Amino acid sequence: MRAEIAEQPAVWARLLAGRAAIAAVARLVAAAGPRFVLLAARGTSDHAALYAKYLIEIRLGLPCGLVSPSTLTAYGARPDLRDVLLVAVSQSGGSPDLVRTVEAGRAGGALTLAVTNNAGSPLAQAAALHVDVGAGPERAVAATKSYTAQLLALYLLVKGWRGSGDAAAGLAERGEATVRRAEVEMAACAARYRFAQRMVATGRGYGYPTAREAALKLMETSYVSAQAFSGADLLHGPVAMLDQQVPVLAVVPEGVAGAAMAAVLPRVRAAGAELFVVGTAAAVAAADGGFALPSGGDEALSPLLEILPLQWLALYLAVARGEDPDAPRGLRKVTETV
Amino acid sequence: MRAEIAEQPAVWARLLAGRAAIAAVARLVAAAGPRFVLLAARGTSDHAALYAKYLIEIRLGLPCGLVSPSTLTAYGARPDLRDVLLVAVSQSGGSPDLVRTVEAGRAGGALTLAVTNNAGSPLAQAAALHVDVGAGPERAVAATKSYTAQLLALYLLVKGWRGSGDAAAGLAERGEATVRRAEVEMAACAARYRFAQRMVATGRGYGYPTAREAALKLMETSYVSAQAFSGADLLHGPVAMLDQQVPVLAVVPEGVAGAAMAAVLPRVRAAGAELFVVGTAAAVAAADGGFALPSGGDEALSPLLEILPLQWLALYLAVARGEDPDAPRGLRKVTETV
Repeated sequence: MRAEIAEQPAVWARLLAGRAAIAAVARLVAAAGPRFVLLAARGTSDHAALYAKYLIEIRLGLPCGLVSPSTLTAYGARPDLRDVLLVAVSQSGGSPDLVRTVEAGRAGGALTLAVTNNAGSPLAQAAALHVDVGAGPERAVAATKSYTAQLLALYLLVKGWRGSGDAAAGLAERGEATVRRAEVEMAACAARYRFAQRMVATGRGYGYPTAREAALKLMETSYVSAQAFSGADLLHGPVAMLDQQVPVLAVVPEGVAGAAMAAVLPRVRAAGAELFVVGTAAAVAAADGGFALPSGGDEALSPLLEILPLQWLALYLAVARGEDPDAPRGLRKVTETV
Repeated sequence: MRAEIAEQPAVWARLLAGRAAIAAVARLVAAAGPRFVLLAARGTSDHAALYAKYLIEIRLGLPCGLVSPSTLTAYGARPDLRDVLLVAVSQSGGSPDLVRTVEAGRAGGALTLAVTNNAGSPLAQAAALHVDVGAGPERAVAATKSYTAQLLALYLLVKGWRGSGDAAAGLAERGEATVRRAEVEMAACAARYRFAQRMVATGRGYGYPTAREAALKLMETSYVSAQAFSGADLLHGPVAMLDQQVPVLAVVPEGVAGAAMAAVLPRVRAAGAELFVVGTAAAVAAADGGFALPSGGDEALSPLLEILPLQWLALYLAVARGEDPDAPRGLRKVTETV
């Protein structure tokens, strides 16, 4: 897991160097002119799908939904999916429910696209179009490099679909500096949360998938009951459960996603919770602790950097607790659900 | 909160008696012929929206999505929503982000429908169509009767939209017997969870919104770190965090939703977690404890009955902990997010 976290900027550089392949797929999608987009995924890939949902709604102005696979697999629904693009996101491309979702999508008239880390997988074969995120073999059970590769591939897909150039110049270099600094800083702060049993992660907009993914990493490797909420949803009930025993990890980057957290942070403080911020230097300075992200760049690319310190936190917290982050209890690398 | 939980079957009877008003709205929706449905809601109402998503996908065969309001309110996206039905669900009809979401929906060409408990609310006024769930004034901060009234109103809407009769005969009577028995049984079992800090609720299909809503009630009134996962998502990572200290509340009703949990329950047991089932008598008998639902009826109406014992659990657990379920810390009845 340590090697795969550290490898991410190199994966991004490789994906950017081969961006023409994604642009070609994007042109085919654009030519089909879908009016609605559905996204299907599980686990970490579901957070990449959620990121794509924000990107597609904001940058393409298309309505978007996350598929509940059981409607197709368990209930046998056969929806009318003409004018729909169905995107299935999966590291392994091996979960039977996603393959069946794509098959039902094709049968319903959707254009289908698989985004996987395995071009030979059943999911890649089942879909009409395929984007290979090219992260290379991922061996740790907790997905890290395949997650940010999915984010970047989906970003490049949407950019190509719009016909606009991407704004990813310097991304890999900034990632390299960030991932190194993050390892040092987060290894030091993991000890602080050694005995925490419950945590909350929160963000809004592009920062919300980061909160979701951070919570999943903490559950998978450190066995923390880590809950994730959009900042707005947190105020609609769950805020009542916060107290001094529940550290809150808040994603407060530059731009809209961070600004939208302004109403949330005082409520977290009022509940007595410790606030750990991944975001701007100013937001970190106003919190109990945090990790300052580098400034600048397209805000839609911020999630690639935001997750880096949180992946390290999950890893070093697991180590501090005597757990093996490479072999979480009860999990295998490929989860097959139907 | 106690009075409002107990009142629910009477609310359902009233809503069923006035079902012609909902059928009239359903005919207008059907006549417009939307091809895609978006649902917007927060908190408890978001779980009613999730229920509607399953119903619409399964019974109407229409693709469906849950709106991320921040894309419209914070990022200012202005999507093309022709052929879209946008349904906003809110007890109070007062949250500014939902009003702005409906306004953006109208501007984008969507047919807009508000489902509220207040016909004079800004949300009801902003939408082209309105369904009044008629639950009467709800005074407890934790929503209970408005939730099941929303479920039933959305069920009747989809039934009317399809042009089929509803299958709700006897529902209020079964609800009355269930809510009384559930109070007695759940008051007795709340003591068992007096010291639990973390809980997990899980279900699939129509039972997944029940799990989400149960977790929210437990967070709001008893301050438990209660997490909800679809049964499939639970296996994609979070199952690692389960141990003997995390009771699992599983929704295992008759029909597809319960059958789809078959692969999940053994994994919960293997993790050493205590399993409490709300579902069939057989599923309860195979668990460590539970509440047996009455048999029969349209499985899409099961969520109205499933949530009753879980509402009582939230109430009596709060009381057992010395908390006031009518006045949860840090919350007000109407939450305004932007």
